[in-house]
Amino acid sequence: MKFSIEKKLEGTLARAGTIETQNGVIETPAFVVVGTKATVKALTAEQIRSLGAQVVLANTYHLYLQPGTDIVEKAGGFGKFMDWHGPTMTDSGGFQAFSLGAAFGSAVSKVASADAPVEDISSTAGQLAKVTDEGVTFKSHIDGSTHFFTPESSMEAQWKIGADMIFAFDECTSPTAPYEYQKKSLDRTYEWAKRCLAKHNELDSEKKQALFAVIQGGRHQDLREEAAKTLGALASSPELAEGFDGYGIGGSFTKDDIATAVSWVNKILPEEKPRHLLGIGEPRDLFDAVEAGCDLFDCIAPTRMGRHGTLHTHDGRLNIRNAKFVDDFTPIENDCSCYTCAHHSRAYIAHLFRADEMTAATLASIHNIHFILRLVEKMRQSIFDGDFFEFKKDFCSRYYKEV
Amino acid sequence: MKFSIEKKLEGTLARAGTIETQNGVIETPAFVVVGTKATVKALTAEQIRSLGAQVVLANTYHLYLQPGTDIVEKAGGFGKFMDWHGPTMTDSGGFQAFSLGAAFGSAVSKVASADAPVEDISSTAGQLAKVTDEGVTFKSHIDGSTHFFTPESSMEAQWKIGADMIFAFDECTSPTAPYEYQKKSLDRTYEWAKRCLAKHNELDSEKKQALFAVIQGGRHQDLREEAAKTLGALASSPELAEGFDGYGIGGSFTKDDIATAVSWVNKILPEEKPRHLLGIGEPRDLFDAVEAGCDLFDCIAPTRMGRHGTLHTHDGRLNIRNAKFVDDFTPIENDCSCYTCAHHSRAYIAHLFRADEMTAATLASIHNIHFILRLVEKMRQSIFDGDFFEFKKDFCSRYYKEV
Repeated sequence: MKFSIEKKLEGTLARAGTIETQNGVIETPAFVVVGTKATVKALTAEQIRSLGAQVVLANTYHLYLQPGTDIVEKAGGFGKFMDWHGPTMTDSGGFQAFSLGAAFGSAVSKVASADAPVEDISSTAGQLAKVTDEGVTFKSHIDGSTHFFTPESSMEAQWKIGADMIFAFDECTSPTAPYEYQKKSLDRTYEWAKRCLAKHNELDSEKKQALFAVIQGGRHQDLREEAAKTLGALASSPELAEGFDGYGIGGSFTKDDIATAVSWVNKILPEEKPRHLLGIGEPRDLFDAVEAGCDLFDCIAPTRMGRHGTLHTHDGRLNIRNAKFVDDFTPIENDCSCYTCAHHSRAYIAHLFRADEMTAATLASIHNIHFILRLVEKMRQSIFDGDFFEFKKDFCSRYYKEV
Repeated sequence: MKFSIEKKLEGTLARAGTIETQNGVIETPAFVVVGTKATVKALTAEQIRSLGAQVVLANTYHLYLQPGTDIVEKAGGFGKFMDWHGPTMTDSGGFQAFSLGAAFGSAVSKVASADAPVEDISSTAGQLAKVTDEGVTFKSHIDGSTHFFTPESSMEAQWKIGADMIFAFDECTSPTAPYEYQKKSLDRTYEWAKRCLAKHNELDSEKKQALFAVIQGGRHQDLREEAAKTLGALASSPELAEGFDGYGIGGSFTKDDIATAVSWVNKILPEEKPRHLLGIGEPRDLFDAVEAGCDLFDCIAPTRMGRHGTLHTHDGRLNIRNAKFVDDFTPIENDCSCYTCAHHSRAYIAHLFRADEMTAATLASIHNIHFILRLVEKMRQSIFDGDFFEFKKDFCSRYYKEV
């Protein structure tokens, strides 16, 4: 993998560049489409290609449980398995093991909001006791079976799943965990990162896969900065070819601190490595993250929102289940070039949702993914054109009705 | 609409031809894809086009209840509503009003089989008392509201829905109803057919829509023949331009009597009118119906089977949920040219079904519709080539393992 910065936005950490992988080039900043179980929900691979997606991320936790990493390996990796021929990523499985593992019944959220009560989030703190220095024990959400993930087993799983870019196994703490716990956890994540690197270099001596370390540290500036320093020092370089090829930024944020927390980290991380902000897909967050120097973002929001009938427009979100749309024969957005808007009216999509037709999810997902992909592409262009802040202001004033 | 017979198969009633509609030409025999609620379940309009479908049939009952015929009319008809630009059909709403109407809780089946116990079918007999000479009262399966369909209201609904080919409102009796009831019902269907013709000619003086009468008569030769004679006499002709443009053959059959019952009818019906066998999609039934002189067939089986993981192959059906497919990296069929087989393995499709992913239904439906469309196209070609019976024997010996 080769990352090249082509343009920086003066006075900010923002940059536009390219990531070259063995399966194609990603123009950054780029939104990474999530294909959790080796499928982008409700879409065919052909539809993903038609959307102009550049890279697909699958979840190691899900593929490990179903169909199992051996099957994916036999298929030639998850890209071939799902017929996606472009660049691919997998996460480490850590976040899902912590947040989905039935034994913990937790509710770790990547962005704390009114929807995720503090009680739920804090309740995960005690459950983190299931983590030891060796790894994490969790129960499958499918059949309740017990599993044990370690840095080494995550590397093995991701090796078999075979994505171009993979992530080191990290501990994702609750944002409400005590400072002392988060500090201890950060040390553990650092030790795990080194174990991942060692295992990765053993498995992948030809460097087919690029390994990203994950920066944690909750909402604490000193912890975030420490993580960026220690893990940043392990970046690959001409002298240390077997180091990390990129960085993920993980954990839970509040809406207001994404830009701040990400800046702490990106001011320290080696500039020449790509940075992936994990699990972020809200338009404003994407602007903030790009401004703060992130290159990649993945999020299930466009598809999950879509399946629930919530659609992005430049004038904000609309809920297509609203009664006013049943006889609205205009497209979701008049000037949208997506398949859905080119072919269908709001009335038709509203009908499909009311009639519980699967095609509703397909058409809504196509529109929402298209919207976010194009938005991030425009951010990239605005870095080249030098009008990023103008674009951000214009977009947000319409989308969020900001004055 | 113009129907032309291009080739007849000697010694049989089979024929190959074309139906010209204002929205395109249908090469017959042709399988009609069912888009119940103005959507072929789990597929986009683009996917329907890619499958090479020639004509789509929507159900008047469903569209009348949801989103309502006014909405479909405002959209410019169901074809425009769903972005299908080719030829279209609607049924009369009668079959669903009888079989789905919640008040009746009945289970009228088009093909009686082991899956449809005789008790269920016979239980509809008493419920047919809800039918009067005026029309049929039924309750919506969605909200329990009461509705009344008449021949006139069915014509009005179908006029608004705007398909190229529509059907007269008929009474679909239970096959186990007493002979006397079926005879009486047939008289009613005849009177309804004439009322439909009158209403249709009033609504559609420019003959934008072609109207098909429906031949009923259960499993009784004399009734079937009577229906074919009386309704056949009302065919459009140079002298009677406002007559019926085609014929549907409705009702319930057993597997063994389709060919026989359809032959009774088609020997009598005017040869120059297209004949649509309603609700039939099993390969052997399609062969039998083509041999017996039918030109069109519609059935939800390919998509419904597909959503349940049952896939057509030339060696019979396979259930992709079977454990043996989880590591089978061959396509559903090696020599199949459908999108699914060109891009995906059985293992991947098996994974999608086990993971409850919507794309499973999409990929399975694509394969099954492709299979049936190509099968009927090959039947058509075999009429031209004169090797219909050879093709039928070859196909059935593999598909049904017949000796």
